[in-house]
Amino acid sequence: MPSEFDLIRRHFTRPARHTDLAVGDDAALLAPRPGMQLAVSTDMLVAGTHFFADTDPEALGWKTLAVNVSDLAAMGAEPRWAVLALALPAADETWIDAFARGFFACADAFGVDLAGGDTTRGPLNLCVTIFGEVPAGGAITRSGARAGDDLWITGTPGQAALGLAHLRNKVALGPDAARTCLAALHRPQPRVAFGQALRGVAGAMLDVSDGLLGDLGHILECSGCGARVDVAALPLAALHALGADDALARRCLLSGGDDYELLFTAPPARRDRLAALAQEHGLPLCRIGRISANAGELLLREADGREHPTAHSGYDHFA
Amino acid sequence: MPSEFDLIRRHFTRPARHTDLAVGDDAALLAPRPGMQLAVSTDMLVAGTHFFADTDPEALGWKTLAVNVSDLAAMGAEPRWAVLALALPAADETWIDAFARGFFACADAFGVDLAGGDTTRGPLNLCVTIFGEVPAGGAITRSGARAGDDLWITGTPGQAALGLAHLRNKVALGPDAARTCLAALHRPQPRVAFGQALRGVAGAMLDVSDGLLGDLGHILECSGCGARVDVAALPLAALHALGADDALARRCLLSGGDDYELLFTAPPARRDRLAALAQEHGLPLCRIGRISANAGELLLREADGREHPTAHSGYDHFA
Repeated sequence: MPSEFDLIRRHFTRPARHTDLAVGDDAALLAPRPGMQLAVSTDMLVAGTHFFADTDPEALGWKTLAVNVSDLAAMGAEPRWAVLALALPAADETWIDAFARGFFACADAFGVDLAGGDTTRGPLNLCVTIFGEVPAGGAITRSGARAGDDLWITGTPGQAALGLAHLRNKVALGPDAARTCLAALHRPQPRVAFGQALRGVAGAMLDVSDGLLGDLGHILECSGCGARVDVAALPLAALHALGADDALARRCLLSGGDDYELLFTAPPARRDRLAALAQEHGLPLCRIGRISANAGELLLREADGREHPTAHSGYDHFA
Repeated sequence: MPSEFDLIRRHFTRPARHTDLAVGDDAALLAPRPGMQLAVSTDMLVAGTHFFADTDPEALGWKTLAVNVSDLAAMGAEPRWAVLALALPAADETWIDAFARGFFACADAFGVDLAGGDTTRGPLNLCVTIFGEVPAGGAITRSGARAGDDLWITGTPGQAALGLAHLRNKVALGPDAARTCLAALHRPQPRVAFGQALRGVAGAMLDVSDGLLGDLGHILECSGCGARVDVAALPLAALHALGADDALARRCLLSGGDDYELLFTAPPARRDRLAALAQEHGLPLCRIGRISANAGELLLREADGREHPTAHSGYDHFA
C-alpha cells in the first residue's frame, strides 16, 4: 500500500500559479495583493451527513471545492487559494485519483491554487478552507439589506433539491430533466464572476446552501429587517418544465438546499444596472420580493394576493 | 436540544481583536499587515487516530489549536487567525463548552482570533486552519539546511511519548513525572516566540510532531542533504530523571511524536547567538548533530563512537 506521503505527492501536487510556497512544508506561504482584504471560509463535508458514501468521487471532488468557492462568490470575492484536509477510511488510490481529478477541475475553473493540506485515516471527511481577495471595504456581507430594497435570486434554484428528490424516488424525472438536476446537485456552478460584478450594486448577499427561505432568514437577522417574498415572481416555471408539480417545485425552490445561487438585495434604482449585468453574464435573474422594516418578519404573498408569515429557520444538522 | 446555530453562537463567538469581520457571514474578512506574507497550515484530528474518544475535551481544545500554532512557529511566523471546522456525533453542550474553553485558552495565549468555522454532525473530527504573518521572504522552510550546519532541538523532546507510554501501561511513572509527561502530551507549548527569534538565524526548521528522526528526514529530503545525530548529545538525561530506562528514553526521544519542539539547522558561526537566545527565552537548547552533504544519509553516532545508518521514514497513518 502506498504511504500517506506518496499518496499526497502523487495526487495533490500540482504547480502552484500564485502561491509563494505550496504543499510540502509546515505551512504554505502566500501574499494577498496590495489593497486587498482576504476573505476566508471553511466547510466540512461528512459522509452520511452531506453526501452518500458511494457518491461518485470525481463529482465529490468538484463539489467539495465548489461549495467553498461559492462562499467567496457570496462575498463578491475572487477565489485564489485553498487548503484541503481529508480523513479517509483507507488509502484507496482509485478513489483518491478520481476525487483529486474533480477537485482540480474545479480549482482550474475558478483559478484556485491548492496551497496545502493534511491527509489522515478516519471516517470519510473532507474539509476545505478557501481564501480569496476582495478590494478592502468592498465585500458584500449579510448585513447590508435596507427596507425598500428589492430581493433577487440568480439562476434556477430548486434544481439540486429536485435532483435529490429524484435520487430518493420521490419523483420520477425524465432522462434529460434528471441529467440537468443531478448536474445541479453534483456539480454546482458557483456564481463567482457575477458575485464580483455585484460589488457596489448589491446591499446584502449570500449563497443559498440550506434553502432560500432559511438563508434569507440569515440576511434578515444580520440586517435587522424583514422581507416579503412574492410567490408569483418565483422562477417556478423552470422546475415545472423539468417535471415537478406545483407543490414539489415550490418546496424545492423555497426549502431545498445545495443550489449555491446568489440571494441578494439592491435598491430599486439599480434594476436597470442589474438587468444589464444579467444579460452580460448570460445569467437568469429574478426579482422575487422586497425588504421591509419589520425586523424578523418573513411574509409569503401568494399568487392570489393573500399574505401569510412563514418560518425561516435554516437547516440544522442537530435538529 | 439547542440548534447548531445556537451552539456556535453560544460557545464560539468571542470579540475578535484583529479580524475585520469574524464568525457569522459567508466568509471572514481579514488583512495581513503591509510587507507580510501569510503562512497557512491545516491539520485534521480524528478520534481514534489522533486522540482517544474520551480525551478530556478541554485539553483536546487546547491541543487542537496548539498543533496548528506550532506549524506556524516552525516557519518563524506569528499566529494571527484560525478557522475551526468540527464534526460532532451529537450536540453535547458540556463537551462543546469544555472544548471551547481549552481552544480559547490557547487562542488567547498565542494571540489568535477565531475568524470563522463550520459545525456539523458526524464522527468526531476537528479541523483547524491557521494563518499567521511573517515578513516577506523571512519564513524558515524545510529546505534551507546546508552541509556543515549544526542540528539543534529545543526543550526536552520525548516527554509526550513517555506520557503516552504511561497511559498505555508500558511504563509506570511516579506521580510528578506522570503529571509532567501528560502535560507535554495534552497541553503542548508551541515555541512561537523562539521560532520567530530564529528568523535570520536558522537555516531549515520544522516542529517535531511525528518523531525526531522521521521529521529530520523531511528536512534532509527538502534540503537534499544528510545528517549525523550524536546519541551522546541527545537530552536523554531529562527522560531518565522522569523514570525512563535508557532504551525507552531513546525510543521516546528519537521516534516519539507529539512533542512540538523545534528541530532546526544553523551554521556553526551562530552558536553564540543561539546560546544567547536560549538564555533570553529560558528554553533549553541542544546541539544534537550535524548536516552532511550525503543526500538522504542519516547516521546515528553511538556514545562509543560507532556510527550506523538509521531509518527516517515518518509516521504513516496508512501503514
